[in-house]
Amino acid sequence: MFRSHTNGELRLANVGQEVTLCGWVQKMRDKGGMIWVDLRDRYGITQLMLEEGKTDANTLQIARSLGREFVVQAKGVVVERLSKNDKIATGDIEIKVSSVEILNPAKLPPFLIEDETDGGDDVRMKYRYLDLRRNPVRNSLQLRHRMAREVRNYLDSLEFIEVETPVLIKSTPEGARDFVVPSRMNPGEFYALPQSPQTFKQLLMVSGFDRYYQIVKCFRDEDLRADRQPEFTQIDCEMAFVQQEDVLNVFEGLIKHLFKTVKNIEVGEVSRMTYAHAMKYYGSDKPDIRFGMKFVELKGEERDLTSGKDFQVFDASNLVVGINVKGASEYTRKQIDELTDFVKRPQIGAKGLVNVKYNLDGTIKSSVDKFYTEEDLKAWVAAFESEPGDLMLILSGDGDKVRKQLNELRLELGNRLGLRNPDEYSVHWVVDFPLLEYGEEENRWFAMHHPFTSPKPEDIDAMMSGDLGKVRANAYDLVVNGVEVGGGSIRIFQKDLQSKMFEVLGFTPEEAKAQFGFLLDAFEYGAPPHGGLAFGFDRLCSLFGGTESIRDFIAFPKNNAGRDVMIDSPSPLAAAQLDELKIKSTL
Amino acid sequence: MFRSHTNGELRLANVGQEVTLCGWVQKMRDKGGMIWVDLRDRYGITQLMLEEGKTDANTLQIARSLGREFVVQAKGVVVERLSKNDKIATGDIEIKVSSVEILNPAKLPPFLIEDETDGGDDVRMKYRYLDLRRNPVRNSLQLRHRMAREVRNYLDSLEFIEVETPVLIKSTPEGARDFVVPSRMNPGEFYALPQSPQTFKQLLMVSGFDRYYQIVKCFRDEDLRADRQPEFTQIDCEMAFVQQEDVLNVFEGLIKHLFKTVKNIEVGEVSRMTYAHAMKYYGSDKPDIRFGMKFVELKGEERDLTSGKDFQVFDASNLVVGINVKGASEYTRKQIDELTDFVKRPQIGAKGLVNVKYNLDGTIKSSVDKFYTEEDLKAWVAAFESEPGDLMLILSGDGDKVRKQLNELRLELGNRLGLRNPDEYSVHWVVDFPLLEYGEEENRWFAMHHPFTSPKPEDIDAMMSGDLGKVRANAYDLVVNGVEVGGGSIRIFQKDLQSKMFEVLGFTPEEAKAQFGFLLDAFEYGAPPHGGLAFGFDRLCSLFGGTESIRDFIAFPKNNAGRDVMIDSPSPLAAAQLDELKIKSTL
Repeated sequence: MFRSHTNGELRLANVGQEVTLCGWVQKMRDKGGMIWVDLRDRYGITQLMLEEGKTDANTLQIARSLGREFVVQAKGVVVERLSKNDKIATGDIEIKVSSVEILNPAKLPPFLIEDETDGGDDVRMKYRYLDLRRNPVRNSLQLRHRMAREVRNYLDSLEFIEVETPVLIKSTPEGARDFVVPSRMNPGEFYALPQSPQTFKQLLMVSGFDRYYQIVKCFRDEDLRADRQPEFTQIDCEMAFVQQEDVLNVFEGLIKHLFKTVKNIEVGEVSRMTYAHAMKYYGSDKPDIRFGMKFVELKGEERDLTSGKDFQVFDASNLVVGINVKGASEYTRKQIDELTDFVKRPQIGAKGLVNVKYNLDGTIKSSVDKFYTEEDLKAWVAAFESEPGDLMLILSGDGDKVRKQLNELRLELGNRLGLRNPDEYSVHWVVDFPLLEYGEEENRWFAMHHPFTSPKPEDIDAMMSGDLGKVRANAYDLVVNGVEVGGGSIRIFQKDLQSKMFEVLGFTPEEAKAQFGFLLDAFEYGAPPHGGLAFGFDRLCSLFGGTESIRDFIAFPKNNAGRDVMIDSPSPLAAAQLDELKIKSTL
Repeated sequence: MFRSHTNGELRLANVGQEVTLCGWVQKMRDKGGMIWVDLRDRYGITQLMLEEGKTDANTLQIARSLGREFVVQAKGVVVERLSKNDKIATGDIEIKVSSVEILNPAKLPPFLIEDETDGGDDVRMKYRYLDLRRNPVRNSLQLRHRMAREVRNYLDSLEFIEVETPVLIKSTPEGARDFVVPSRMNPGEFYALPQSPQTFKQLLMVSGFDRYYQIVKCFRDEDLRADRQPEFTQIDCEMAFVQQEDVLNVFEGLIKHLFKTVKNIEVGEVSRMTYAHAMKYYGSDKPDIRFGMKFVELKGEERDLTSGKDFQVFDASNLVVGINVKGASEYTRKQIDELTDFVKRPQIGAKGLVNVKYNLDGTIKSSVDKFYTEEDLKAWVAAFESEPGDLMLILSGDGDKVRKQLNELRLELGNRLGLRNPDEYSVHWVVDFPLLEYGEEENRWFAMHHPFTSPKPEDIDAMMSGDLGKVRANAYDLVVNGVEVGGGSIRIFQKDLQSKMFEVLGFTPEEAKAQFGFLLDAFEYGAPPHGGLAFGFDRLCSLFGGTESIRDFIAFPKNNAGRDVMIDSPSPLAAAQLDELKIKSTL
């Protein structure tokens, strides 16, 4: 036994006990013949104390040779501290040290092992094992563990069975790019790593497992954005003999359970919103509904309050849409310019921003006064339901494109006005997604979710008759604070409908059979109706942790080039390895 | 809602209730105007009943069109059964059906979906989703789920943290062959899939995680034997500030917890046996100690009871060793011949088998009577501590080679004599494994466990002076009923010792740095003493399930050629995929 206690557990009740502690040197003070050492481990910090003249000379000498992050074992007796430290749980006591042993010395770390560190991203990635020593990072991973545990508690209580599905599977052309694995035993052939266990969980439903889940690694070989990882973790779930409502009920239950057990927050009612509604009123399929500022259309399908006044910009647009910003009528020219610059940034791409101020004195002032009379503007004010003191911000252009621009502006204002409180949580479903979306570049239809998603029964006729843009899916996303944390669908379970879906996606019958023959076969041997969903576990953890980045919730993340800079991977292989695999580089 | 109840939950108390059930048609009887349908789901079987003249004609017609494995929804009222079926939990009731809907028809399955099936291995692998419908297979996977849950319960209660380590890591030359993954973003470079998270869990100890575990997929590209899978699951664990005894205590606690909670079996004391003892007395590093029959050496290091009698076979051997089979003196010539044939099989490779019968009448009769007097044989009897009625079986040859042969014979006799009762469990540790083993072919030393295993402190001098065969490791295996279910070691945590280990294994300093530089670096920044182990989870499950094969405990296993015959993987890639990865086939 290296230690009798951890550094987090000694209290006044232990005073007088002989103890042995182990840990890392967090910091040291050597002053006036007294030496204090803060000894750290995962459980806490305990103060060691040595005293010139009382502690034996050899032990004092060892203590004086210690440096930051040395690993030491100290023996001594627990004594009450004269000056208590109420910042740490062990702050009432310290250890009067009788002996110290250095278990392993440490070079000076390349950055401070403190909650606030001086290390940049790159050095912290290279020395990830040191960054993981810092409390915020370790706490993030402990939170992740607790969340995984509560996910399992909840799903186990509902008789879900966790089943491991294979990692070495088959490459499929649909969806994102696969990582592939050459097979040595089957030369010229490759496995693929799963982007999700989608078909396997559906087969488990065909097998009668009834309720399946898995917390499982998935893989996508995509160009990495700041917050994407080539390997990520899903909470993957599927249920048989269910309709959409059954699935929504079970999994809003899961999210409520997590909020309750992990954060002690009671989530209220989980509302539902159609995709059409979300796009029309928020310009996003994952609206943040912690605040209002819903879109108001001045010109659109329902009305036109802008045309015929010689304002070419609006006249040339099929949609004129804006938001009403409460109490912002006194925004300065500079503030308005900032917002205009914001929407004109290339990644947003608006041409300009129209503003209408409904001043506290009742007057109305707009950036388009040249074209619109006060009467016109009063009609706008009525449409926006503005009150004196409000500011209306208006964009125009082409349908969903301008809605997406306005969504960015709405979120930006939400941030500026402090309406997106990270300690407040809104949880809701977006439902009735389109089944298909058209790829202009590729000139064909793509599955919006994936090829196994079921059309709504009432839209199957439209699908059969080729009116593909009209077909809605039994698909749903769970949105928390404007972040999509999960999504799923009721699946197709009939061979004919699944074949039709593949046809719509441009598969020949031969291609469908070669890629998904096993699933089509399975549907002929008694497949039950089924559906499910998957949560992005990394993102869910970061949301619960109150940060934007998922990296701190992954023990050993990769950088934006897909590299693990700590172990220096990927790396070249020995020629003999490639020979055995019957492949070679074409570089 | 597709159903109001599952097929496992209705009882007499539900009589009179209107219910809706869903499931698969297990079987049907249509006799004398009555139709009975057994409706199956994961939870059980409920009997449906329809009656000519009472059930409406349309419903009767649908019922008569049902076939095995059709998926149906049935509505009706719960009634008490006239003839109870006490084999099923719902056997007191049946459903008087008012309507039946076919949710999905089914083709006739290619094999019987019954506990005892008529399907051969190949067809059951191809239609794995149908094989998974059978109770024994589904029960195996439910057992697996329960075991994973209890593993987590136990380790969580001891403050272990489950941390996910990466799947895309770096290829290393030591150990088994890696599966590799070409990197598109880093052309010419490859990731490898982990054979175990060994170095990552050690880094987590350097990070101060203190107690880590993970139930994790691992990968080895080895030629597959009957009971190996290219991907398999480990319970992977590591602890800081521990000595060997601490690790053994925690994990024999785990195995006891599993036996108690999953099988309601109290495992007694978990004994320890050195590797040297196991080899000397059982010829195996994983002896089955449910029965005795320990080896007795007639000629060896301690004595020689065989030489100088002109029996060339023994004289030419450095080891003559046997077992005493209780009450087997009356084995017939045929039985002895069978055992002789057994040990002469090529995979065992003995040249012959000497037998000595200590008959019930006190006479001794042996197959080497020509060479040994009764006096000689009496000395043997004394060495074996034989009693009248016993049979001694003796092999000779070269050290550990003959011990391994005798191990096979001992296990075979254990089987024949019914001494290996699958419902009786012996659990013990084998400790003090050699650190290194010599590869005659490769003409160099290999790590017996892995390069991170610590030598015993008292054997470090031998290691430094190059007496490598003498060096024992702080390594241990957990053995249940002669099966190695887990193993681990106390690790090296000092940079110098780790460097020495790499040197012994033939790494140049440059190679060691290129492959494991991150670990050597980490050891310089305050690495604590640590150790751990890993359990083979698939094997552990099969052991608890009482079967030899691990396949039924894996939802979608691969065959001996590493193929998933259900999804037909691995498979060729599209040329464009290979182009993007900058690799090509050399076939």
